[in-house]
Amino acid sequence: MAEPLRISWPRLRDRLDTLGAVGATGDGGCARLALTDADREGRDLVVSWMRDLGLRVDVDRIGNVTGTWPADSTEPPVLTGSHIDTVRTGGIYDGNLGVLAGLEAVETIIASGVPLRRPVAVAFFTNEEGSRFAPDMFGSLVFVGGLALEEALDTVGVDGAVVGDELERIGYVGSLPVPGRPPAAFVELHIEQGPVLEAEGVDIGAVTGVQGISWQEVTVTGQSNHAGTTPMAHRHDPAFVAGSVAVFVRDLAGRMGPPQVATVGRIELHPNLVNVVPARATFTVDLRNTSEAALQEAEAELAAHLDALAEAEGVTVERRSLARFAPVAFDPAMVDRVERVATGHGRSVRRMPSGAGHDAQMLARVCPTAMVFTPSVDGISHNPAELTHDRDLEAGANVLLDVLLELVTADSVP
Amino acid sequence: MAEPLRISWPRLRDRLDTLGAVGATGDGGCARLALTDADREGRDLVVSWMRDLGLRVDVDRIGNVTGTWPADSTEPPVLTGSHIDTVRTGGIYDGNLGVLAGLEAVETIIASGVPLRRPVAVAFFTNEEGSRFAPDMFGSLVFVGGLALEEALDTVGVDGAVVGDELERIGYVGSLPVPGRPPAAFVELHIEQGPVLEAEGVDIGAVTGVQGISWQEVTVTGQSNHAGTTPMAHRHDPAFVAGSVAVFVRDLAGRMGPPQVATVGRIELHPNLVNVVPARATFTVDLRNTSEAALQEAEAELAAHLDALAEAEGVTVERRSLARFAPVAFDPAMVDRVERVATGHGRSVRRMPSGAGHDAQMLARVCPTAMVFTPSVDGISHNPAELTHDRDLEAGANVLLDVLLELVTADSVP
Repeated sequence: MAEPLRISWPRLRDRLDTLGAVGATGDGGCARLALTDADREGRDLVVSWMRDLGLRVDVDRIGNVTGTWPADSTEPPVLTGSHIDTVRTGGIYDGNLGVLAGLEAVETIIASGVPLRRPVAVAFFTNEEGSRFAPDMFGSLVFVGGLALEEALDTVGVDGAVVGDELERIGYVGSLPVPGRPPAAFVELHIEQGPVLEAEGVDIGAVTGVQGISWQEVTVTGQSNHAGTTPMAHRHDPAFVAGSVAVFVRDLAGRMGPPQVATVGRIELHPNLVNVVPARATFTVDLRNTSEAALQEAEAELAAHLDALAEAEGVTVERRSLARFAPVAFDPAMVDRVERVATGHGRSVRRMPSGAGHDAQMLARVCPTAMVFTPSVDGISHNPAELTHDRDLEAGANVLLDVLLELVTADSVP
Repeated sequence: MAEPLRISWPRLRDRLDTLGAVGATGDGGCARLALTDADREGRDLVVSWMRDLGLRVDVDRIGNVTGTWPADSTEPPVLTGSHIDTVRTGGIYDGNLGVLAGLEAVETIIASGVPLRRPVAVAFFTNEEGSRFAPDMFGSLVFVGGLALEEALDTVGVDGAVVGDELERIGYVGSLPVPGRPPAAFVELHIEQGPVLEAEGVDIGAVTGVQGISWQEVTVTGQSNHAGTTPMAHRHDPAFVAGSVAVFVRDLAGRMGPPQVATVGRIELHPNLVNVVPARATFTVDLRNTSEAALQEAEAELAAHLDALAEAEGVTVERRSLARFAPVAFDPAMVDRVERVATGHGRSVRRMPSGAGHDAQMLARVCPTAMVFTPSVDGISHNPAELTHDRDLEAGANVLLDVLLELVTADSVP
């Protein structure tokens, strides 16, 4: 029996650090918000690595980038990848690991000379994080036809920038049409971004699906007034409403129990002064659950609370959906494959849902899809302290490699 | 008996509108944050009116401006005035009325040729609002020796600007030393900024004093993390703490009852993104009460709530006092004088405390002081919709005129 193929860990580590230095925040973290100059620099770097490997680099109309081997192939490839944009206070693994381990796996497969039954490709998708432009998983959503190109290009970001203009500006308006042609299969390696694997001492997560996501932006308009002279009974205070919602959703998640989570991550008051009852508050509510019914229940409870608050406080409330994705279940045969490969590597494995949204959940609409999770130290992510130990990164990349290798050499997929 | 002196209402109305056009926000409101270009433009305009009247214009080291008549006088004047800086979403009467009605009263006194026993002067004080630089009543506080000049000049604003630099930049570093020489007396006309006079159908408020003010800035540091993958039980969420405080102080004010008021007017989250549990929240709490003991009770309850929250949520909390002023009682003889003059004008009068802070409460530390209130429509202030009816503005200005006239012609003050 031949020596099993293994990725080059020093090469992967080096690429993680090199890409992590682009947009580095000086505290171990990374800020490469989608379609900014830093994102362009990161894209250019990864594209240069794709070209160095001899991959054919394709860019589609929403800026998703795919590197395919062989360069002259025309059949649907087995695709891997993730994203390289980050949140404003991001770490260097979220997304980046999936792209660079994917590149590493492709390089290892090419170098091995193993005969391929179908092409292999690695992609990074535009604006997965959604920190600058909503919704998240933006590029993969457009790729699978879940968001029309025109609407996507017209999307205005939190800083007033427009997706189409920014794509043009950074030189990533490609020629491939969207929706794109479905790949033969999709496999994404990602850090867990939660505490479960580490807490249970498990090496690898075989991801069974992704919880549903509901993002709402709530704008409350009240009556701006003097903080010293306005009796409490006369107030119409949007900051109180924002605060009350932050407390309510914490309580709601507690009542519903895991896996329900609820977050008020953004609050903006206007005029935002110590001695003025604000005129307006804009804030976001992020609700997630693996059960669509439970997620709808959480949304309904929030809506009822907001209606009651608006009535009691004498304010108006506008709600805008920033993102709404139902829970996704991955292809059972693909999940089994991840579990079997990881077990074969001598790793402990846990089947688990993903708490975060991922490009894989979009790809799951058009092809057999799976994800591989590696443990996150202290469950920390979206934070400069985000960390996965080297041994876990290497183990995860080798599981990805063998899953891809099976898929590109098998008679049929999945 | 001679015809009583009366101010020129068209002239006052015209000056209110002309000054209100500087920094106009297009919705009837005004934005002249302290020491900005708009504030400079407003200052230059009022100074030009002072010079047109032949007043001697003096500027002190913190940028307070006084126009004195006669120009060659050396005795302590009877002083009137207020401020011309506004909050970011201010109206055109708050502060401005006191300065321009004061100017109008001085002009009327000069034109009358009445013999003066002592000089008369009108001032505007730097940064009364405290919206850009804390604390509020900044210039008058320095004038009476309540804040050292060096500390005042080194104060950093919410936008990072420094008071000393900004004073220099707009050309209002004067030569008069601070603390300044106490005037013979101080009288300030101001809109009520609350609903009491209008609700009771009363024309004039004879202000008995000013409620105590406690401004705190609270910074909560938690653990930034992924909003989708971090179980609720693992969170250390500063946004939840900020929201909980907004709800708590509303409840606290309700339990304590009037005149206690409590406001969370400013909240800033970092990184302030929909899908990130924030790392940090900074917010302000504005507490006011006419009773020092009650104000201390409110502060103690807030502190206990914050301590308990910090413990329960696993976050650290830092508190910084932005302003702390005990309640102030005005000189009884001065309050009587306002009441008597207004009654003599055929106005209904109510003795009342001020809910807002005013420069008068600082001047009260060094000289006999009084305030005259005029009604605010719907009690609205710190808002472009801030309004006092013309008849009330005129009535208030004439009460101010006669109070000043008594003070400058009396054998002794007050």
